[in-house]
Amino acid sequence: MKPKPTGLRVRLPAFVFVTQVIVVALYAAFVTYDEHADARFQTNGTDPMDNALYRDYPAFADIQVMIFLGFGCLLAFFRLYGFGGMVFNFLTATFAIQWAVLAQGCLRFSRDGKIHLGVINLVNAEFACAAVLISCGAVLGRTSPLQLLVMALLEVPVFACTEWAVLTYLRINDAGGSILIHLFACYFGLGVSFALYRPRLNEGHAKATASYQSDILSAMGTLFLWVFWPSFNSALTLKGDDQHRAVLHTFLGLSGSTLAAFALSAALNRNGKITMADVQNVTLAGGVAVGASVDMMISPAGAYVLGMAGCAACMLGYKYLTPFLARRCRIQDQCGIHNLHGLTGLISCAAGICAILTASEETYGPSLYEIFAHMAPTEGDPRLRELQMLIPGLKPGLGRSAREQALYQVAAVFSTIGVSTLGGVLTGFVLKLPQLAPPPDDLCFDDRLFFEVPPDYDLPLRLADDATEGSAA
Amino acid sequence: MKPKPTGLRVRLPAFVFVTQVIVVALYAAFVTYDEHADARFQTNGTDPMDNALYRDYPAFADIQVMIFLGFGCLLAFFRLYGFGGMVFNFLTATFAIQWAVLAQGCLRFSRDGKIHLGVINLVNAEFACAAVLISCGAVLGRTSPLQLLVMALLEVPVFACTEWAVLTYLRINDAGGSILIHLFACYFGLGVSFALYRPRLNEGHAKATASYQSDILSAMGTLFLWVFWPSFNSALTLKGDDQHRAVLHTFLGLSGSTLAAFALSAALNRNGKITMADVQNVTLAGGVAVGASVDMMISPAGAYVLGMAGCAACMLGYKYLTPFLARRCRIQDQCGIHNLHGLTGLISCAAGICAILTASEETYGPSLYEIFAHMAPTEGDPRLRELQMLIPGLKPGLGRSAREQALYQVAAVFSTIGVSTLGGVLTGFVLKLPQLAPPPDDLCFDDRLFFEVPPDYDLPLRLADDATEGSAA
Amino acid sequence: MKPKPTGLRVRLPAFVFVTQVIVVALYAAFVTYDEHADARFQTNGTDPMDNALYRDYPAFADIQVMIFLGFGCLLAFFRLYGFGGMVFNFLTATFAIQWAVLAQGCLRFSRDGKIHLGVINLVNAEFACAAVLISCGAVLGRTSPLQLLVMALLEVPVFACTEWAVLTYLRINDAGGSILIHLFACYFGLGVSFALYRPRLNEGHAKATASYQSDILSAMGTLFLWVFWPSFNSALTLKGDDQHRAVLHTFLGLSGSTLAAFALSAALNRNGKITMADVQNVTLAGGVAVGASVDMMISPAGAYVLGMAGCAACMLGYKYLTPFLARRCRIQDQCGIHNLHGLTGLISCAAGICAILTASEETYGPSLYEIFAHMAPTEGDPRLRELQMLIPGLKPGLGRSAREQALYQVAAVFSTIGVSTLGGVLTGFVLKLPQLAPPPDDLCFDDRLFFEVPPDYDLPLRLADDATEGSAA
Repeated sequence: MKPKPTGLRVRLPAFVFVTQVIVVALYAAFVTYDEHADARFQTNGTDPMDNALYRDYPAFADIQVMIFLGFGCLLAFFRLYGFGGMVFNFLTATFAIQWAVLAQGCLRFSRDGKIHLGVINLVNAEFACAAVLISCGAVLGRTSPLQLLVMALLEVPVFACTEWAVLTYLRINDAGGSILIHLFACYFGLGVSFALYRPRLNEGHAKATASYQSDILSAMGTLFLWVFWPSFNSALTLKGDDQHRAVLHTFLGLSGSTLAAFALSAALNRNGKITMADVQNVTLAGGVAVGASVDMMISPAGAYVLGMAGCAACMLGYKYLTPFLARRCRIQDQCGIHNLHGLTGLISCAAGICAILTASEETYGPSLYEIFAHMAPTEGDPRLRELQMLIPGLKPGLGRSAREQALYQVAAVFSTIGVSTLGGVLTGFVLKLPQLAPPPDDLCFDDRLFFEVPPDYDLPLRLADDATEGSAA
Repeated sequence: MKPKPTGLRVRLPAFVFVTQVIVVALYAAFVTYDEHADARFQTNGTDPMDNALYRDYPAFADIQVMIFLGFGCLLAFFRLYGFGGMVFNFLTATFAIQWAVLAQGCLRFSRDGKIHLGVINLVNAEFACAAVLISCGAVLGRTSPLQLLVMALLEVPVFACTEWAVLTYLRINDAGGSILIHLFACYFGLGVSFALYRPRLNEGHAKATASYQSDILSAMGTLFLWVFWPSFNSALTLKGDDQHRAVLHTFLGLSGSTLAAFALSAALNRNGKITMADVQNVTLAGGVAVGASVDMMISPAGAYVLGMAGCAACMLGYKYLTPFLARRCRIQDQCGIHNLHGLTGLISCAAGICAILTASEETYGPSLYEIFAHMAPTEGDPRLRELQMLIPGLKPGLGRSAREQALYQVAAVFSTIGVSTLGGVLTGFVLKLPQLAPPPDDLCFDDRLFFEVPPDYDLPLRLADDATEGSAA
Repeated sequence: MKPKPTGLRVRLPAFVFVTQVIVVALYAAFVTYDEHADARFQTNGTDPMDNALYRDYPAFADIQVMIFLGFGCLLAFFRLYGFGGMVFNFLTATFAIQWAVLAQGCLRFSRDGKIHLGVINLVNAEFACAAVLISCGAVLGRTSPLQLLVMALLEVPVFACTEWAVLTYLRINDAGGSILIHLFACYFGLGVSFALYRPRLNEGHAKATASYQSDILSAMGTLFLWVFWPSFNSALTLKGDDQHRAVLHTFLGLSGSTLAAFALSAALNRNGKITMADVQNVTLAGGVAVGASVDMMISPAGAYVLGMAGCAACMLGYKYLTPFLARRCRIQDQCGIHNLHGLTGLISCAAGICAILTASEETYGPSLYEIFAHMAPTEGDPRLRELQMLIPGLKPGLGRSAREQALYQVAAVFSTIGVSTLGGVLTGFVLKLPQLAPPPDDLCFDDRLFFEVPPDYDLPLRLADDATEGSAA
């Protein structure tokens, strides 16, 4: 039986056409260059090599590799959905970034009614994009490209608003984005998945399996993410020693989670064998686990322990929680984002709070008030001037105590989870509109639904066509 | 039927041996280090961190990835010619770079009878290499490795001469290489292809198809190119805000073309499905389309629109022009380089000319005369001194008006197309010499012709050996 | 016949658990941040952009790609051992790096009883890791993951001690690590292989072959290594012109070896066809061959010639020496590391010695005594003060003559080979302990032994299960 037409011929182009006209109009009306990209701002005092490009571009390039090659390969693990995994990731990411530049620009980077564009805005937009791609992991293979674009369309503004509100009003420390990226993305994605629940998937879908080749490709994606994760976690920290620590902690955390992942994978398997899905996902837990405290003085050993703890939570989640959520809570999670980003993100937040509560001038020196900027003395406090002698350019803070700061972190965790879950569920119901051409239930995870596939293609498929629609043992 | 021996056993090694002896002799006689790589030039005033290496190496590394991994994977899309696509790209690129260092060095970078070598020469040579690889795309799978090397041997000096003549006498603005790389490479490649015309290919060749795995690999190549294209387009711009804009415009242009490519691919397909060849090629059109104006103040919205326009031209070219050229003009174009580099390159040139005609001091400030160096006042003009107060180090120009500069751009387009077409056709006739061991017509696109392939290899081939020689329905 | 359980369920997790507890304890007790990563060292005189991170991170990121993606893909070339090749490389590399930070830190980077950790330590640890991975190439597919971890556990301290002794007492020039990385790794690996000799492998193992897909993946690994090798060879040179030359020489050397590899591969093949294994390995010989003299003034032509010479030695080694060693000397070498790292490393050492013997102030200027630091005049020599006027910050040396320095280089070669061979053989005998769960002889190169593989996986296998155990014709 051949897949039926999906209505993409009209609806996908129409959606892209309309959104692109609007995006171009908004860019034309509101987006201009920032002072590092505008030729008019170049004076006889400008040293070209001081341009922000040289500070921001290396991180941008590394994160580009993560988004397009890392996620792209990682998500290509279904045997019959390799094109979909890699290519819809490409489509969704591109749209999410251009849309996030507008949403974040409007809330956080506008001045005189204009959004001032530089590479730094693209870095910020790629973080928003990462959140969208993580959320998509929960519904991978169950959604049409049009649904993915609509999901990005709705998730990006919710993300930008949450980010803006948390950074403006709660003022938290979250250099690696554990709260704002990982927790947000996870609960948004689970909300969407809840709304798109498909009971038959729980019985195991014959196509929802990997092939030998797709598992290797997906492991390559993991390696791209693993290798460049230090750039991701350190992209938005303060420059200097803070960024240096962020690189070290991310590497050490990933080391810890990788070794633990191999060990736990063998230990939890009946035959002592390693599961490729664990290698592909659980090894990355350390990058998430160190996120919230990545620029703090948690010590190298602390970063290891965090990586291992994140790995253990993530591994147990895959083993026990994901099946439970699918059966009991109607929350299906194809890529297990709740394990890698949700559970590990919560551990990261807890570690961040501990690090804040134990932070002292003894460990940090006066730069304590740079890292924990909101604990710096307020304007007018004589202590501020003293500190400014030691750290020139220190900005006045809010005079928060460590305990107050910790409470704000907790508030950020809960409000982010609340907003993202709600946003996700609402988005999920929008995605069910028949106009968005959702794929028929029995043809999930199948590239032939969306891609022109020649009849003599050697598809990696042992199953005959007509045998693929039911559930597998 | 087993493929016959191809005469590579003697001819390929002989060619490499002879050329390498000559290359080494020429390097020994004429190539020395430049002042940033020569130990003798280090004085007590030299700061090692000011070495040009730190300015040029990041772009060099990114372009290396594009050349060897990006092109390598992209060209591996034929089901039976994956080795050939990836590995002959490696061979040809390596030879083209070492040869271009000599050709460009001799014409553009020699001083006191010596070529002074630094990483910047390698960057320039990689641009020449990119032109060769693009040209090879037109005849992919129809040429032996020896033919590819001879093609590189002949194309590189023609490229270097054209580049030198255009930059020295016409003095154009072409930061992204739309004229000198994309148009040159395209028309050179089409010229070669014209000479190598094979009528039977037009009926569709059973082996000239992709497999599921090869299409995924090729999409990875696209992603490598996509991710690092901003480095390519900005590698040779002025440092500072110019380079910053080049990065932004390339990214935005690629965004525009990517979304448009997905939409058009679905819209132009009978069943509303997406064609992987479009994803692999048309998404990149934006990078070419912004090339000629990439460092100018075309505005972010302008970069989007250019990307979309390039994408539309490229897509329509694949759909209608490529089949037409193959049937009516005896020009076969395996990778569709005329669409991605020719049509899109022309759009880019037109946009560059518009940007030049509308450039004003109002938009650019005094740095107008840095970007459009040839419009700067001539030596002795009192206006020059005034401008030099605002921009220290501004060099005297030719005092061209915008309209004059535009005319020179037009002249560069036509002369580049003329020279490259002629050079390509002549090169093509050289490649037909029987001494160059061209592959027999009925064994194109087949790794077994060139590579030692074990009999029990699982080749991605549904077709029996004896069925592959004819034409497919 | 299904593979039997391998005892990994208990032993691998137990090993990881025990070593990780020890590693965390050692990190907690002895590892602290270096002055570029410690918040306390930030004073009002610190410019964040002067942080060592910005000097060391680019090389670190490039080497990460080489270690995890380059080696990972390159080693995935066996048709049934793709997971093992890529994923055990990931596991072993992660463990080797965290362990090398401790071993090297203790010997070379400790101060006041503490190891001071920065990104530069990770770069050094990745060199140690590269040595381990090269050694693993000799026994690829014949070892369980537990054996690989034990091998890393034993090799890293031997490596760190050799490195420390050679650098402290012999004081050699070896910027690219030809002696300390390539020769050490090669002879250590051969020693291990000697102890793990399996006679039946010599008859050819049905599973010890590549598939079409695995060969392409492996070629991608080669390209990753090729592209970033200049970063590897230049990571630990002096900054400035030395590093610039290292980049140039590595690129030119690789060019030379790549062209020669294609030519020799076709010339030595009966049918004039190219062998993919040559493309995957021999093309890289140039990177090793320039190693010992990579920062010296060997001239661009010299780098080419070295690359070609290394390629020729490597190619002949694959063709004649590897089979000979396997049959006559009981040394099996799956990846041919003796050719790529041993023979080529010896050529590199010889070239380094020639470059030292011919070094003169005429060629290098006064910076001769920076590159060959041990030939600088000793403290108190009036010539030192003179030179310090020309090169501020020049450190007093040992006043060695070129001939003395050359003798020390020779001593380093022999002592490294001796120590590594002995260490390798002893390590090999440890690996044969039954507690380390070595795989049964007839199930080498088989992912199904170590990985949970679904029964309906499309394994790239033409052979029926029961036919795989014997030897192939």
